Amino acid sequence: MAEPSSLLNQVEKLKSEVTEPFPCSSKIYIEGSDPEIRVPMRSIQLTPVYTKQGYQENPSFAVYDTSGPYTDPNFSIDLQQGLTELRAAWIAARGDTERLTQVTSQYSLHKRQNAELSAIRFPQQHAPRRAKSGQNVSQMHYAKRGIITKEMEFIAIRENMHRSAIKEQAQHEGVSFGAQIPALITPEFVRAEVARGRAVIPCNINHPELEPMIIGRNFLVKINANIGNSAVTSSIAEEVEKLVWSVRWGADTVMDLSTGKHIHETREWIIRNSPVPIGTVPLYQALEKVDGKAQELTWEMYRDTLIEQAEQGVSYFTIHAGVLREHALLTKNRVTGIVSRGGAIMAAWCLAHKQQNFLYTHFEEICDIMKAYDVTFSLGDGLRPGSIHDANDAAQFAELDTLGELTKIAWKHDVQTMVEGPGHVPMQLIKENMERQLAACDEAPFYTLGPLTTDIAPGYDHITSAIGAAMIGWYGCAMLCYVTPKEHLGLPNREDVRAGIIAYKIAAHAADLAKGHPGAQARDNALSRARYEFRWHDQFNLSLDPLRAREYHDETLPKDSAKEAHFCSMCGPKFCPMELTAEIREGA
Amino acid sequence: MAEPSSLLNQVEKLKSEVTEPFPCSSKIYIEGSDPEIRVPMRSIQLTPVYTKQGYQENPSFAVYDTSGPYTDPNFSIDLQQGLTELRAAWIAARGDTERLTQVTSQYSLHKRQNAELSAIRFPQQHAPRRAKSGQNVSQMHYAKRGIITKEMEFIAIRENMHRSAIKEQAQHEGVSFGAQIPALITPEFVRAEVARGRAVIPCNINHPELEPMIIGRNFLVKINANIGNSAVTSSIAEEVEKLVWSVRWGADTVMDLSTGKHIHETREWIIRNSPVPIGTVPLYQALEKVDGKAQELTWEMYRDTLIEQAEQGVSYFTIHAGVLREHALLTKNRVTGIVSRGGAIMAAWCLAHKQQNFLYTHFEEICDIMKAYDVTFSLGDGLRPGSIHDANDAAQFAELDTLGELTKIAWKHDVQTMVEGPGHVPMQLIKENMERQLAACDEAPFYTLGPLTTDIAPGYDHITSAIGAAMIGWYGCAMLCYVTPKEHLGLPNREDVRAGIIAYKIAAHAADLAKGHPGAQARDNALSRARYEFRWHDQFNLSLDPLRAREYHDETLPKDSAKEAHFCSMCGPKFCPMELTAEIREGA
Repeated sequence: MAEPSSLLNQVEKLKSEVTEPFPCSSKIYIEGSDPEIRVPMRSIQLTPVYTKQGYQENPSFAVYDTSGPYTDPNFSIDLQQGLTELRAAWIAARGDTERLTQVTSQYSLHKRQNAELSAIRFPQQHAPRRAKSGQNVSQMHYAKRGIITKEMEFIAIRENMHRSAIKEQAQHEGVSFGAQIPALITPEFVRAEVARGRAVIPCNINHPELEPMIIGRNFLVKINANIGNSAVTSSIAEEVEKLVWSVRWGADTVMDLSTGKHIHETREWIIRNSPVPIGTVPLYQALEKVDGKAQELTWEMYRDTLIEQAEQGVSYFTIHAGVLREHALLTKNRVTGIVSRGGAIMAAWCLAHKQQNFLYTHFEEICDIMKAYDVTFSLGDGLRPGSIHDANDAAQFAELDTLGELTKIAWKHDVQTMVEGPGHVPMQLIKENMERQLAACDEAPFYTLGPLTTDIAPGYDHITSAIGAAMIGWYGCAMLCYVTPKEHLGLPNREDVRAGIIAYKIAAHAADLAKGHPGAQARDNALSRARYEFRWHDQFNLSLDPLRAREYHDETLPKDSAKEAHFCSMCGPKFCPMELTAEIREGA
Repeated sequence: MAEPSSLLNQVEKLKSEVTEPFPCSSKIYIEGSDPEIRVPMRSIQLTPVYTKQGYQENPSFAVYDTSGPYTDPNFSIDLQQGLTELRAAWIAARGDTERLTQVTSQYSLHKRQNAELSAIRFPQQHAPRRAKSGQNVSQMHYAKRGIITKEMEFIAIRENMHRSAIKEQAQHEGVSFGAQIPALITPEFVRAEVARGRAVIPCNINHPELEPMIIGRNFLVKINANIGNSAVTSSIAEEVEKLVWSVRWGADTVMDLSTGKHIHETREWIIRNSPVPIGTVPLYQALEKVDGKAQELTWEMYRDTLIEQAEQGVSYFTIHAGVLREHALLTKNRVTGIVSRGGAIMAAWCLAHKQQNFLYTHFEEICDIMKAYDVTFSLGDGLRPGSIHDANDAAQFAELDTLGELTKIAWKHDVQTMVEGPGHVPMQLIKENMERQLAACDEAPFYTLGPLTTDIAPGYDHITSAIGAAMIGWYGCAMLCYVTPKEHLGLPNREDVRAGIIAYKIAAHAADLAKGHPGAQARDNALSRARYEFRWHDQFNLSLDPLRAREYHDETLPKDSAKEAHFCSMCGPKFCPMELTAEIREGA
């Protein structure tokens, strides 16, 4: 039982390495109609520009900030305590939930009573909340009844992030607005999109610590980072560190895909310390409970697992209910068969029992659980292609049609729903994926893994997939699940997580630009203007990874004076085209 | 004068670090109609697969190989000697060239006679070849007269690389062929494409060491790597090492963009040791000759620079003849003005002299030089956008129209021509770039830098641009100029070059797949099959970077036995979906 002390040691390290604010950045909070609504932003302070008229100030630039309180120097980090429950009062005030005296899941109860686990258990015992009998506490349910929740208002402010920047820069350039995106994201627009099913707000009532965010194609494209241990490697402390590290670089949601030791305890640590919604694949833990024997899975123990995780505060569940017994045969001519773990497990179960997938047959019972805690469906694509050869085949699209059916059943229950997508898809077949998903699932948000546009670059699949992710984001995908350089090869370490997240921030932002999302281009313009004016620090600080940008510049020109130089080591002092252009303009 | 000894020291290092063959790979040569035509390929030996019927052999897999003799253990590397002149006899046999007794360029002559440079000069004095008076030695000239050169036959074999693999794998899958690409690349098809101007074969008669390759949208998409020193950093030895390193990872051509010390001498070392065509921007050296003062550039010294470089063996010149005096004003409202060094230099010259760009006014004289050595035009886009804001603006397209005019003038002279393109372009504007280039330049090959799809990720511009590069490659771009992680920040080091090249191999291959190029998918299928069958070594060895793939796998599972394990550390032994699928199939 070396876990607790090693965890504490790493907590110390978190403070300096993982949480220090980015250079020249400060945390600001925008208040909503109610002082309880405080929307975090990161404000980047810019340096003045030198002109013939002397130094001219540059306004600071605010960006969307997923990093939570960790980067706020006024917040004292205590992982043993968890984050502030900023939504607790909102949830309680709605009056449709009750605090349980004990956890409902038998497994959770057993875990809580196991004295041997006390050393690794999250110290604060959390009494879960659940909808009162007959109530539905999903954001979709409120939205359909015309209620604008505090979460929705929070999101509207958050999505308008670049607006102040746009206003301040309006004299420099004309910003064009995409046709389908309203000029201003209003709380009412958020509500309408959620009611329509075109967007989801993953926010389990048992995760009051999260800062609300939205996933839908009329909003900023979001990205997800996966963490989680496997039987081979990684400890609880490492996973918590990866969580904080992930949100630092920009993960909008984090999935805990643990399949190794202490899944229950790891998850509790993660949720209590997470400012972003946490997603899981409950099947992984269910399989762990039957020691990896797929045929021993039962609806009853799976159901208990859903409740266990819902009461911990997981905000979305990947559920492979669309892998039907009859679909397995459609994968027969594939090069890579079934590559989704959940898909393979359910196919194996169907085969062993000669029965239909129990997630499909019990789908409405699952809906009842989801709405009691406001857990969002992420309908898993268990038959996603695992190679270029297998893309867009009959198996994939047969499952997609089933996911469309399930979406409508979930909506009937006012349960928020998104739909997962591939995988490995060559560029010319990506658009068809998006179009068919929108049609089959009536515009429910699409959430894809990549897609990878070629199979031949293990070690670089953050790049093969960023290409596909950017394209499908442009076509309308709402959230992109990151892929790290370690994909297909091993469990990612911290640097892999950073590389994967930045690649996906690039893809998401490129998609926002291509969609003409209001405000997306403001950051490009601010950075390019800084570049053109040789404001090196501003160029670094406005970038997605200020530390890496500066580090690379320092490699060849480490002196501080080079940060004001009108050239860099690529071209040297005499060949800088931007300096030449400035001279041309002065001469002209 | 510490250069020569440090160069020699580094040459020693080259042998072990930069040139060792990839694991399980051997160099093979496919003979053409004439035993002098020996087309190099890399043959990857695969391991047998274990089935219920016992071990079954897998045929070896041949891939396109740009690495030259360096990876052939039978070749003894001597950088002081240079590579074998494999095209020397072909060129001589055509009887339309003469060996000069002395270099034509005054500058070259001066350099050759400067005793102080003997320590850093390439040891072998090269007597240049030139077309006999009134002759045109361009591949386009031959092609238009119906002549199939040895270069064309070499290329036809090279482009058919995957064909044997396809045949061998035909029983496994159906490979679809793109409509516009013939099922088999024949020497006659190569000739016809060159004659039509839709493809170029950059192959200066003074670079007989190069292995012929083709750039055109009906062939495999090619990539270029830039090397070259700047005044701030890098030595001759480093540049030669970067060359060998670049072709090792897959650069199809290399541009020497040196702007620092000893440009002439550095270039000689590079060309004599290069198995791929070398491109340059002659303007950089011309500017160096007038100590960086753009207004002091003259046609006469620029002309002498063209001859100097043509007689050294440069195969394509970037020439910024399309930046017209009147275009500069069109950049007035840009965020980043002119970001092309060549464009900025020529705009500055026009402004200083109140005259039209001398590259434009002397264009036909330049054509006369090009055809005497078979140098290919790479018409520079001096007004390419340097930020998302400036993409597809009036300045860019005005220059493109001028490049179209110049293409037709070059073709009138039977001079091979490609056209350069941007730059920074958001995804939704990329297609317009390709379509307008095809229309304005009558299908001359397009050669783009990226494009970068967002400005906000300095430090990761190999990724921002790989997205745009893959897309424009799909739309029809023939060659993609790589961007490294150091773009905008500094001169790339060796690892940056590797990262940039692999990102661009990914983009080019993704484009080949999307275009349905015959054979492109064979490698994806072979790798995915290896992945599915847990042939770990084959998965590594078939990838674009076998060393990195293995290194990543070793990080979590270093033992040799793990290379035969039916799982990896991502999912661990119980959760491997592919293993589960194999079990399902056996059960079904």
